[in-house]
Amino acid sequence: MSGVVSTIAQRVQFGDCDPARIVYYPNYFRWCDVNTHTLFEKAGLSARELADRFGVHTPIVDAHLEFRTPAKWGDDIEVRSEVSRWGSRSLTVSHRISHAGSGDVIAEGHTVHVCVRPDPETGKIGACEVPQELRDAFEVGEAGN
Amino acid sequence: MSGVVSTIAQRVQFGDCDPARIVYYPNYFRWCDVNTHTLFEKAGLSARELADRFGVHTPIVDAHLEFRTPAKWGDDIEVRSEVSRWGSRSLTVSHRISHAGSGDVIAEGHTVHVCVRPDPETGKIGACEVPQELRDAFEVGEAGN
Amino acid sequence: MSGVVSTIAQRVQFGDCDPARIVYYPNYFRWCDVNTHTLFEKAGLSARELADRFGVHTPIVDAHLEFRTPAKWGDDIEVRSEVSRWGSRSLTVSHRISHAGSGDVIAEGHTVHVCVRPDPETGKIGACEVPQELRDAFEVGEAGN
Amino acid sequence: MSGVVSTIAQRVQFGDCDPARIVYYPNYFRWCDVNTHTLFEKAGLSARELADRFGVHTPIVDAHLEFRTPAKWGDDIEVRSEVSRWGSRSLTVSHRISHAGSGDVIAEGHTVHVCVRPDPETGKIGACEVPQELRDAFEVGEAGN
Repeated sequence: MSGVVSTIAQRVQFGDCDPARIVYYPNYFRWCDVNTHTLFEKAGLSARELADRFGVHTPIVDAHLEFRTPAKWGDDIEVRSEVSRWGSRSLTVSHRISHAGSGDVIAEGHTVHVCVRPDPETGKIGACEVPQELRDAFEVGEAGN
Repeated sequence: MSGVVSTIAQRVQFGDCDPARIVYYPNYFRWCDVNTHTLFEKAGLSARELADRFGVHTPIVDAHLEFRTPAKWGDDIEVRSEVSRWGSRSLTVSHRISHAGSGDVIAEGHTVHVCVRPDPETGKIGACEVPQELRDAFEVGEAGN
Repeated sequence: MSGVVSTIAQRVQFGDCDPARIVYYPNYFRWCDVNTHTLFEKAGLSARELADRFGVHTPIVDAHLEFRTPAKWGDDIEVRSEVSRWGSRSLTVSHRISHAGSGDVIAEGHTVHVCVRPDPETGKIGACEVPQELRDAFEVGEAGN
Repeated sequence: MSGVVSTIAQRVQFGDCDPARIVYYPNYFRWCDVNTHTLFEKAGLSARELADRFGVHTPIVDAHLEFRTPAKWGDDIEVRSEVSRWGSRSLTVSHRISHAGSGDVIAEGHTVHVCVRPDPETGKIGACEVPQELRDAFEVGEAGN
């Protein structure tokens, strides 16, 4: 597992919550996405650079979260994300969302991202190898290793 | 599996999409949630009634979607949801999002909901049995059957 | 004022509402945006076509809503939008959001959109004339008329 | 004008942007709302406390933003908010969103909030005086002064 880890801290906002006064759950996936981007930036190769320099996007093919305890309006929470698996054309990012104070887990899960790129000739979007530059950024060496 | 099925049709909006010009994926979970509510309404007992009449909310403890093909700005899509499993204190709703024309699957997955209710004495929120009225609405008979 | 009007009807969803159990107000701007796109489609030249065929986007330079009465979870509402003013490089879309049953106004206001396009040489985004094709679609004749 | 000012800094995220690769504008209203809450917290009486202790909510009756320059995916921005006017039953919060580096203004505007509270007898929500505790928190003295 790569040593690069990103942890973002935030306060649950009024607008993040639903009539039950807890976080409206799709927001957790939004925050996992935000922290995935932050993780790439921290590794030194942002998704934006990846798109601009290599034409490579990393859309999600699988997203899964299990929810342990709710987070309420005003709670201070942390989102911790890291790459837990590298494939030849995909990577898995593990996410853990917890209460900042107690460390109690709010949600745990992962997102699987595939690398895609428009075909230079047809322009059609298709899967591609994980750019070596991205692996290098996370210091995981060659594919398969 | 209950016979009640809800299918909602919609056009992917500009604001649903990201710089990659495809649906920003947390929106799929939002739409699954919208259709889960529509499903309950169709069964005849809305989540809102459930909250107002019984004090019961159905927060999500597990949310999982696999993404097959992207949906782009302007695409017409359908979200099809139904209860695929009843537990004593939980229910699983299966979701399939597809292109309206071709029927090509965009995403498939499920959400697991637990029934919770504030304790009449302490007011503390805790798990509770699935209200019989909800089972009846979906015509699945007694718990465990 | 152009005769083209778009009205969309929808039910206020659980996830649209905040802990006060009323619509979280930024959603109203999202719905105005959705209906602005629907309005353009209804006129026969969608914002997407406008972007794809002419490279013209219509970002918002002014957004204003006044809120009369709240809308609650489960309410059926309507969003009515139409172009209320054409400028040489901009257009104003008026929006009225109301309760479907009573017609009671929930919110009223407008968004002002400018036409922008990347400079063919520098690629720099800059303001441009409202494409005649867009005016024609709304049947408002020549600029200034 | 009260001396209490809240400024929040953030990076524009992928998911905040639309296919035009700029911030999807309803997000600006969301951020103004977040910073309004942060402003209240900074003054020492959060909207949440206001709701929990006094049963008072501060829904928005008017929201207006003018947009000067777009913010793009990856930009670092600041949202600066302060109370610019106190009424007997309302307050106006002014917002300025700018680029963190250059200070270039992205958007400027305001939100007007009324104080509402459920009637102790009927439970019906209605306008009420701005709680003195809120004025005190912002150190603006008596109403009308």
